[in-house]
Amino acid sequence: MTEEQIKEKVKGALSPARFAHVEGVVAEAERLAKRYGADEDKARLAAWIHDWAREWPADRLEEEARRLGVDRELFGPVAVLHGPIAAAKLGQEFGVEDDEVADAVRYHTTGRPGMGLLERVVCLADAVEPGRAYPGVDRLRQLASQDLDRALAEMFDASLRDLLDRGRPVAVLTVLARNECWSRVRGGRSR
Amino acid sequence: MTEEQIKEKVKGALSPARFAHVEGVVAEAERLAKRYGADEDKARLAAWIHDWAREWPADRLEEEARRLGVDRELFGPVAVLHGPIAAAKLGQEFGVEDDEVADAVRYHTTGRPGMGLLERVVCLADAVEPGRAYPGVDRLRQLASQDLDRALAEMFDASLRDLLDRGRPVAVLTVLARNECWSRVRGGRSR
Repeated sequence: MTEEQIKEKVKGALSPARFAHVEGVVAEAERLAKRYGADEDKARLAAWIHDWAREWPADRLEEEARRLGVDRELFGPVAVLHGPIAAAKLGQEFGVEDDEVADAVRYHTTGRPGMGLLERVVCLADAVEPGRAYPGVDRLRQLASQDLDRALAEMFDASLRDLLDRGRPVAVLTVLARNECWSRVRGGRSR
Repeated sequence: MTEEQIKEKVKGALSPARFAHVEGVVAEAERLAKRYGADEDKARLAAWIHDWAREWPADRLEEEARRLGVDRELFGPVAVLHGPIAAAKLGQEFGVEDDEVADAVRYHTTGRPGMGLLERVVCLADAVEPGRAYPGVDRLRQLASQDLDRALAEMFDASLRDLLDRGRPVAVLTVLARNECWSRVRGGRSR
């Protein structure tokens, strides 16, 4: 599939508002990839596909996750399953066979410990694309251009606080990712 | 060892301020055990012993945890290791051979998914004993007498927020315990 065909397929699977978000993530992921030296083509590809299954009903997500053997303990709430599901179906649905792109799609909502550069770029782009509006997003946008790990660390903290405030389940992956990001920032290994 | 001998041994291992905290936890754990039908003798025993290794220096905690094979990924920061270490040495140091008491000591700081009644009582007693002073403790004290799971859920949330605010590592066990507590509260299986 060409990038244009992938874009059209994703557009067909999403509401206009969600597709506008995806376009924002594609632009932001490309910008961050350039800024930090990640592969820009892969960043755009992962960004186009990341929310492809985002509007599936809960029972379809649950069933497909069961079929694919997604670890529910790790990923947590049902809404998070669209990432691992899209990642598992990347070859079949989009003809994309690339582990980096798959991981960037799989972990774009939760993060995980040991995130590669492409994963970090796509995860952060998803949180700060121009269409996002939530308390603190302007600070994260500013940080995103300056310090990838610190921006991610603060983004995970904000996301965890939001989940606590709303009484929602917290994914273990996010906590591990957050602990590691801060440890990188503190250890001066941040970029 | 008699309870009096255990008390004296713990007193000898702690600063007066910390020992006063332990006395508070013993009284509160006994009170909560009575309220919720847990074993009051075991609750007192676990409470006496829970902070026995709390004032060990970091390198001694690290070394002993390594020697005992404590899972660092689960428990997180070094200061948390005093629980699993005291639990592992319960027989040798205090002549106590009781799995429930051991688990209550082991998980008193972090909690864990699947906490038994005694564990929940001791964990909560540690957080709300009369000597504790932090924002929100009065609400937790009130809740503690009314709804054990809800009090624990809110206590874990408060603890997670505090760790985020202070940029400290978050233990995976605490997140799993917190998710489960809220799920019990929401599912009406709270007590």
